[in-house]
Amino acid sequence: MIERDGLGMPEFADVLTAEARIAPYIHRTPVMTSSMLDAMAGAQLFFKCENLQKAGAFKVRGASNAVFGLNDRDAARGVATHSSGNHALSLAYAAGRRGIPCHVVMPRTAPEAKKDAVRGYGGQITECEPSTSSREAALAEVVARTGAEFVHPYNDPRVIAGQATCSKELLAQVQGLETVVAPIGGGGMISGCCLTMSGLAPGVEVIAGEPAQADDAARSFRAGHIIADDAPETVADGLKVPLKELTWRFVQGGVADVLTVPEAAIVEAMKLIWKRMKLVVEPSSAVALAAILGHPERFRGRRVGVILTGGNVDLDRLPWMK
Amino acid sequence: MIERDGLGMPEFADVLTAEARIAPYIHRTPVMTSSMLDAMAGAQLFFKCENLQKAGAFKVRGASNAVFGLNDRDAARGVATHSSGNHALSLAYAAGRRGIPCHVVMPRTAPEAKKDAVRGYGGQITECEPSTSSREAALAEVVARTGAEFVHPYNDPRVIAGQATCSKELLAQVQGLETVVAPIGGGGMISGCCLTMSGLAPGVEVIAGEPAQADDAARSFRAGHIIADDAPETVADGLKVPLKELTWRFVQGGVADVLTVPEAAIVEAMKLIWKRMKLVVEPSSAVALAAILGHPERFRGRRVGVILTGGNVDLDRLPWMK
Repeated sequence: MIERDGLGMPEFADVLTAEARIAPYIHRTPVMTSSMLDAMAGAQLFFKCENLQKAGAFKVRGASNAVFGLNDRDAARGVATHSSGNHALSLAYAAGRRGIPCHVVMPRTAPEAKKDAVRGYGGQITECEPSTSSREAALAEVVARTGAEFVHPYNDPRVIAGQATCSKELLAQVQGLETVVAPIGGGGMISGCCLTMSGLAPGVEVIAGEPAQADDAARSFRAGHIIADDAPETVADGLKVPLKELTWRFVQGGVADVLTVPEAAIVEAMKLIWKRMKLVVEPSSAVALAAILGHPERFRGRRVGVILTGGNVDLDRLPWMK
Repeated sequence: MIERDGLGMPEFADVLTAEARIAPYIHRTPVMTSSMLDAMAGAQLFFKCENLQKAGAFKVRGASNAVFGLNDRDAARGVATHSSGNHALSLAYAAGRRGIPCHVVMPRTAPEAKKDAVRGYGGQITECEPSTSSREAALAEVVARTGAEFVHPYNDPRVIAGQATCSKELLAQVQGLETVVAPIGGGGMISGCCLTMSGLAPGVEVIAGEPAQADDAARSFRAGHIIADDAPETVADGLKVPLKELTWRFVQGGVADVLTVPEAAIVEAMKLIWKRMKLVVEPSSAVALAAILGHPERFRGRRVGVILTGGNVDLDRLPWMK
């Protein structure tokens, strides 16, 4: 059971609020199937295509919920975050839709392509040194100077409630779902899945897929407390971050299992999705399918929802390019 | 006007027959949009996603119409074709669904990956030398030996009527369409578009996009007779083949214009579709968008259907890989 009395834990009612609030700014993404992948998995797979979401990832749900939940006075001062990935793009997109500033703290060593993408969505970049202390100092400075509202990429009840709208849509789109599988990094998406199921379908199993090379969530799950790794290396670069208080609570109370997968299986699953489904997904997205194909006994004969979390990938640096 | 008295020209009624016949075997593919690409084009673009079609390309429509239109006695002897591309995959898929043999004549020099793909769909390969005379001799031998029905990749009324079901769906999916743009190689898809519009929407303009390096259709269109090139070279490898009698008739009578595009624009449009729409499409598919972006004055402010013809691409040999 997920304990609901923790400070700041979102409740299912927050998902309904989020759903109505963000509807004008996001896509109700389609669910796709592949008879070929079903045959490989020995299960019926229903892929929720968040790679086709605004800004190219599910993160726009949580970011939009945070941005559009602010009152006008707070909103006018803008929002701020630290991220070089999909949360930064998503927060910049949502802020742009509301017409407020978005400040993004990024290490000066981040690829220019990522900085350009954030700027392309209207984000204002503050560079820091590539260290946690520099990042935190830079963020504190930006917030102090501008009064912007800090929106954490996942350890924020507004963000988790927003991500939960994805699995809520999936439940409405697929009848008789038995299991939902999503990748886990910081745990925002998985927490959203647990939140949705707690309110609507407690019998649906939530399973997380994780790179074996960044298996802090799997080890936390088995140990019963948060274990954070320092700097894991994985091709699934969206999944390097550790669990935090809120997401850990959901993982501990709502997740049936955390399945780990080797790097080669992630790349193989990614190519399978590209080749068989004709969908561009990022490596992190492929971790869920890799978990299913790597643990077939766990899913055989079941109706399984699979969250394809995003499609933002550098086409000039694909993992199978030499 | 398309002259309808030619021997073997399909009529609009054949499209209705084809639609009902092939419905159990194909997908009604979705139409997708991109606000980013709309802004680039200055037009409203509606992408018909035949890359998400069975066997990964629109060709399965024509192939299925041919296969399922045979009477049982003829069908039992199987079907045959020469192709190393999507028509071969599609004919093998359709024959497999009917449970009859499919013979494919392919040059022994064709990539193993393509042979494997045809075999993967159940096709039986007969190898020939890489020359037209050897190919024709091999096909004649197969047909004589097996009694299989030859199904040409495009110069066949059953195939054209099948391809026409794609634009018929598009018309039903998008209100107020003003223009349809599709790539042209042999002309099967474009002929299908002309056939659909002649029956349902004569006011909708049909425009063909063609690689400048394989511009035989553009030159034929301006000259008023078929001009066939010997061995054009283009990244859009599905578009190297020349027009034939039937498809030429449609191009001459039903197409508003043939717009040519340079190789670099094809690759750029392909990357745009991958990056912005998160869809895997093959280079030939990108020729239509390249034509729109290269001739913006022709499309400005219009509601334009764009046929994404297929998504079968070798992920290890993308055109932008060195």
